[in-house]
Amino acid sequence: MTPVASTTRTQVAIVGGGPAGLMLSRLLHLAGLDSVVIDNRSAGTIETTHRAGILERDSVRLLVDAGVDRVLTDGQRHEGIALRFGGVSHRIDFEALAGSACWLYPQTDVFVDLHRARTADGGDLRYGISDTEVTDVLTAPRVRYTDADGRRHEIAARLVVGADGSRSGCRALVTAATQYFREYPFAWFGVLVQAPRSAPELIYTRAARGFALVSQRTATVQRLYFQCDPAENPDDWSDDRIWAELQGRLAGQDGFRLQEGPVLERTVLPFRSFVQAPMRHGRLLLAGDAAHTVPPTGAKGLNLALADVRLLAETIEQALVRNDATALERYTARALERVWRAQHFSYWLTTMLHRADGASEFDEQRQLGELTSLVSSRAGSAYLAEGYTGWPAR
Amino acid sequence: MTPVASTTRTQVAIVGGGPAGLMLSRLLHLAGLDSVVIDNRSAGTIETTHRAGILERDSVRLLVDAGVDRVLTDGQRHEGIALRFGGVSHRIDFEALAGSACWLYPQTDVFVDLHRARTADGGDLRYGISDTEVTDVLTAPRVRYTDADGRRHEIAARLVVGADGSRSGCRALVTAATQYFREYPFAWFGVLVQAPRSAPELIYTRAARGFALVSQRTATVQRLYFQCDPAENPDDWSDDRIWAELQGRLAGQDGFRLQEGPVLERTVLPFRSFVQAPMRHGRLLLAGDAAHTVPPTGAKGLNLALADVRLLAETIEQALVRNDATALERYTARALERVWRAQHFSYWLTTMLHRADGASEFDEQRQLGELTSLVSSRAGSAYLAEGYTGWPAR
Repeated sequence: MTPVASTTRTQVAIVGGGPAGLMLSRLLHLAGLDSVVIDNRSAGTIETTHRAGILERDSVRLLVDAGVDRVLTDGQRHEGIALRFGGVSHRIDFEALAGSACWLYPQTDVFVDLHRARTADGGDLRYGISDTEVTDVLTAPRVRYTDADGRRHEIAARLVVGADGSRSGCRALVTAATQYFREYPFAWFGVLVQAPRSAPELIYTRAARGFALVSQRTATVQRLYFQCDPAENPDDWSDDRIWAELQGRLAGQDGFRLQEGPVLERTVLPFRSFVQAPMRHGRLLLAGDAAHTVPPTGAKGLNLALADVRLLAETIEQALVRNDATALERYTARALERVWRAQHFSYWLTTMLHRADGASEFDEQRQLGELTSLVSSRAGSAYLAEGYTGWPAR
Repeated sequence: MTPVASTTRTQVAIVGGGPAGLMLSRLLHLAGLDSVVIDNRSAGTIETTHRAGILERDSVRLLVDAGVDRVLTDGQRHEGIALRFGGVSHRIDFEALAGSACWLYPQTDVFVDLHRARTADGGDLRYGISDTEVTDVLTAPRVRYTDADGRRHEIAARLVVGADGSRSGCRALVTAATQYFREYPFAWFGVLVQAPRSAPELIYTRAARGFALVSQRTATVQRLYFQCDPAENPDDWSDDRIWAELQGRLAGQDGFRLQEGPVLERTVLPFRSFVQAPMRHGRLLLAGDAAHTVPPTGAKGLNLALADVRLLAETIEQALVRNDATALERYTARALERVWRAQHFSYWLTTMLHRADGASEFDEQRQLGELTSLVSSRAGSAYLAEGYTGWPAR
């Protein structure tokens, strides 16, 4: 057994230093609780990995309440989206329908902000580690890992949080858990392009050839997606082929054209739904992608992780400060209510807008019937707006 | 060739004397247009075949506008339904959410009322005929049939309407049509029981064992359904077994119990979606089940037929009285918009409440997530209420 070079005692050991882990450590700090965050990746890698870009209203509130408010100046408030089908766009006006909005603000910026805040407030953040091992989660949890110099360290904590993403190692420690899956027969082809904005808000498009999504990053860099086969190889797609596919799906009676430019990055994004329950085992609690993943259509992944973390900060304070032994027990049920609603929301937007393999002509016409009903109904549009901008905490 | 015993000249020959055909002939009569209605069945058979029982707001308006208003005194205005899942009922208040309501009034009563009205106003209704043959639909339509005494008759008409139900013979005359199908892997077991009302409004129930629906007929006769295998044999179900199945699906935290009594009738109802387009070929027009069938969950079948007929009466008047040659051409697109919305609505209620064969645990939890979202959201509940009580004509 490798000797341990150091042992740190803390209240909460957080495995995973992405936005969820950092936000939790920030909220705990603000509540007077100390934590140590560890992550296999370097901070630079996390900062440059493009992920989601839409924050729900309450995710923005959480950031602002945590004193991390660059989103208000550098983010863009989006008061609606367009649903486009039959070659016509229909705006869903979040502000008018649900008195709400969401914010375009990349996950990488959320990470940068939280990392900066936690660094400034003296947070103990340990990136670039390896061989993480979590033990004794039923009694007195210990986390051991190897640092960049090959030395083994130990963290002794009252609680451990697994915020270590979709390939979570902590997840496996929740024994006797049920895992819920749904595979989808398609994926998203995502590109980052150098081009001016083609639209002020996101455009969710249902075309005969399949789904496409127009989103934005900055004045000169845009993020676009189109539904593809999961086996698609990004290298088979030239810039010209990508633009032809996107323009074809966006084409319509209004003559809409995307602004083109060089493709900076191309990736095939996986598409699956996953939930593990319970989200707790003894003194180990899971948050975010470690416990659940959603397809990207509803932009719910990061928002669910932040909602878990908000609930977790409250739960941990109840458990550690107020000695409420039942708080940990309530966590799973409280978190999962939102998770299952978000799974449905993501599934709904997905099935409403994507072309299913082997979809019959009946299914296609029914899908158009649904879209027609939705945009014809203020109530239906408001239901979508509420789900998209996020259900309030309860 | 059998000699023709009589030839009748009329403006519109209507094949099918159920509620759709009779309503059309009534509306045409009120507009000063004459028609002849024929049907293979006897009026007595139609009157005693139990079918749907829910009328949308605009279906009731159409009846009342047509001078057939017994529904207002003998029908029951329902201002909501209950959605029941997890053993708890959640009321969807149509009046509060959508300013609307529907009426419980059996299709057999709609038939009786229309038959009486058309008989009183001198309508030419010919039941119990056979060997219907429709020809020359592109030029000068002719309908031939054999009466109960074996004599052959002919109707020469300017237009023919096929309102001859889901086994329509007229449908096949629309050449080069597209037929859209969806099969569902389940059926409904429907019973008519002698028992007092168990609830004032319909209860749509999602249980672990599958869907169940509590509906009413009169103070002493009720109509109940539960999801079953399409191959189920009604004779295998004793009264006791039926009640045990229904009570099990309705059981919940509130201690709800159905009021039991003798089972008067038991049937397995088929479950499929079907649309044929176009709904016109030359001077032949289809209405109702002849052109489309929906699964029973949304109670849309009769309502769609009446909506077709309302549109058809207007179309025929435009074509025959105002000589608007394009009216017939517009009929299919105008009718199908509602049909596809109703197909989606029926599919939505079906998939939200039924247990699919081979449904994964993910699917079940997602389904509960959807129901939770729906009943938690005023907008979502209003969207359901609007669809259930019926979209306005446009």
